[in-house]
Amino acid sequence: MLDNEKLLQRGLEQLDIVDGEHGRSVADTLAGIAPDLGQYLIILFGEIYSRPQLDLKQRELVTLTALAAQGGCEKQLRVHVNAALNVGLARDEIIETFVHCIPYLGFPKVLNAVFVAKEVFEQRK
Amino acid sequence: MLDNEKLLQRGLEQLDIVDGEHGRSVADTLAGIAPDLGQYLIILFGEIYSRPQLDLKQRELVTLTALAAQGGCEKQLRVHVNAALNVGLARDEIIETFVHCIPYLGFPKVLNAVFVAKEVFEQRK
Amino acid sequence: MLDNEKLLQRGLEQLDIVDGEHGRSVADTLAGIAPDLGQYLIILFGEIYSRPQLDLKQRELVTLTALAAQGGCEKQLRVHVNAALNVGLARDEIIETFVHCIPYLGFPKVLNAVFVAKEVFEQRK
Amino acid sequence: MLDNEKLLQRGLEQLDIVDGEHGRSVADTLAGIAPDLGQYLIILFGEIYSRPQLDLKQRELVTLTALAAQGGCEKQLRVHVNAALNVGLARDEIIETFVHCIPYLGFPKVLNAVFVAKEVFEQRK
Amino acid sequence: MLDNEKLLQRGLEQLDIVDGEHGRSVADTLAGIAPDLGQYLIILFGEIYSRPQLDLKQRELVTLTALAAQGGCEKQLRVHVNAALNVGLARDEIIETFVHCIPYLGFPKVLNAVFVAKEVFEQRK
Amino acid sequence: MLDNEKLLQRGLEQLDIVDGEHGRSVADTLAGIAPDLGQYLIILFGEIYSRPQLDLKQRELVTLTALAAQGGCEKQLRVHVNAALNVGLARDEIIETFVHCIPYLGFPKVLNAVFVAKEVFEQRK
Repeated sequence: MLDNEKLLQRGLEQLDIVDGEHGRSVADTLAGIAPDLGQYLIILFGEIYSRPQLDLKQRELVTLTALAAQGGCEKQLRVHVNAALNVGLARDEIIETFVHCIPYLGFPKVLNAVFVAKEVFEQRK
Repeated sequence: MLDNEKLLQRGLEQLDIVDGEHGRSVADTLAGIAPDLGQYLIILFGEIYSRPQLDLKQRELVTLTALAAQGGCEKQLRVHVNAALNVGLARDEIIETFVHCIPYLGFPKVLNAVFVAKEVFEQRK
Repeated sequence: MLDNEKLLQRGLEQLDIVDGEHGRSVADTLAGIAPDLGQYLIILFGEIYSRPQLDLKQRELVTLTALAAQGGCEKQLRVHVNAALNVGLARDEIIETFVHCIPYLGFPKVLNAVFVAKEVFEQRK
Repeated sequence: MLDNEKLLQRGLEQLDIVDGEHGRSVADTLAGIAPDLGQYLIILFGEIYSRPQLDLKQRELVTLTALAAQGGCEKQLRVHVNAALNVGLARDEIIETFVHCIPYLGFPKVLNAVFVAKEVFEQRK
Repeated sequence: MLDNEKLLQRGLEQLDIVDGEHGRSVADTLAGIAPDLGQYLIILFGEIYSRPQLDLKQRELVTLTALAAQGGCEKQLRVHVNAALNVGLARDEIIETFVHCIPYLGFPKVLNAVFVAKEVFEQRK
Repeated sequence: MLDNEKLLQRGLEQLDIVDGEHGRSVADTLAGIAPDLGQYLIILFGEIYSRPQLDLKQRELVTLTALAAQGGCEKQLRVHVNAALNVGLARDEIIETFVHCIPYLGFPKVLNAVFVAKEVFEQRK
């Protein structure tokens, strides 16, 4: 199994930096129903986000776009709008990421993503 | 109509910076069949890419992701892997953008995007 | 910037015809978070919907289909089921648009769209 | 019209086996707005699910995957997590179907599907 | 089985009107590998396209949009750009259907669809 | 890094069972451009396919569906139609997997998948 202690530990550390409280809560929710899924998530997250080729701000730009483009990922977008703020992206960089997608994705997916960002921004005051 | 001279002019200038020879050739291909479509593309491109909230490297990270996430956009990916190189992204930043998407999009879309990048890199030697 | 007065004015007029009260309210919601996004929406809407090649009924057939096909666009479908009624499409033409999509999109997306139409029809009496 | 008595009858019988109470309730909801759509659903369901090339367990594995892969089909997933249990798939086979999809669909769609399964499992005690 | 003679007959007649030579050739291609699939296609096509709530031109507007929106359906788009011309849609109505989709689907899917139309128009001289 | 020797070894063994010659060739193609991507693929493949909750035939049913549902994954479908035959699924079970998806995905995605299967079946004589 992939879930040896060291990989999990690194994943959790990375998750704490990027997601704050939200990351571990996803894994906790999975504990009762699909614990392996939670561990894969943590391990893959730790692996990918600690690679040196892109920094955390760039990674969150990419994540926000991948989630907005798929549609139907409002829950995950909420986590990653928070994560984007945690790693230092400004609010208008987050909004601009979605605005930039208008010509590529059309308005409906962009609007859905912006409304998620609006909610998160309001919750964080 | 949106296509006043000034908007078109700015779009073409922006297109030359970002896409090099590829940008105008898309518009040219459209000239015989859907000329307005070509003009909308140029105008919207000029408008979006000249906004100050993100720089051109960040914009290409976002564009590459939006195209990879949709699937079936290999032609547009080819144009934008070139564009990404034109605005100064390194080859391993482009590949890493796709690798970063594994947990969000799965392997098939990532592989399709990486194979397009491979082709472009080989053509540019 | 695209948002000169004349383009915005035409967009708002077109929006009032097609969307009634709903159109401006989307733009209003965006005002606090992404005002440019609201203006792009209005301008592009005004531009596209005033083109002579298709009439407004045909345009709403196309819009309803594009939204149903994407999935996850229930909010936008709600606006455009209303818009379709506003421009004169009959209720059974709207439902038939979705029924026609069964062989192309499958039942799940069709059912999701029909349930949105059902809600809108009930709200309008 | 396709809806002759015999085809409908077979569809309803098949629906009762696979979906229990849930199947007929979808058709009932459609009765007031799109009755033909409900009948097509029943007939096609009866036709497809009674073909001998795959058994009902295999068919539900396929259905769960098709719904998870599309995104935005949480309602239909709920019906078919129930259906999967009805035809004899174990809870951990259902969860594993989604876990298996991680490399093909990515985490967001897998998580959305697992959360639907979690809800259904809890409701059935 | 659904494939009784009368349903198949009606489907083939409808297919000849809408698709000309192309429709039967899809069914022929399927004959060696998945003959039932070909028959379902013909029967469902005959059923849906002969419903009175929308005329054939409206149906092709909807079909073109559903195919463009999905992405990756270039083969089917080719058949239906031909079908759209067969039932009397003008070339600029077909192109406009795709142009209308820009704000809903973004440029990449619209461009892919327009390039298919371009090919078909050139083949038909 | 995830790519320790043991995980890679298990992945390659699993890949040989399921994919025959095709699996390693994907990793080889990636070696020059994105070697880590190839290793992640092998490790995740080895991890997922060796889990006991579903057998290899069930896993390939799920994989075929996930790929057909996404669209634009013809290359990966080709690999997995082969894999499905390698682990013992019959040709008509593979075709039926796609036929079963008609009500969930619509004909275009089903046809695209069936045509890939047709090609693979012919190549294997």
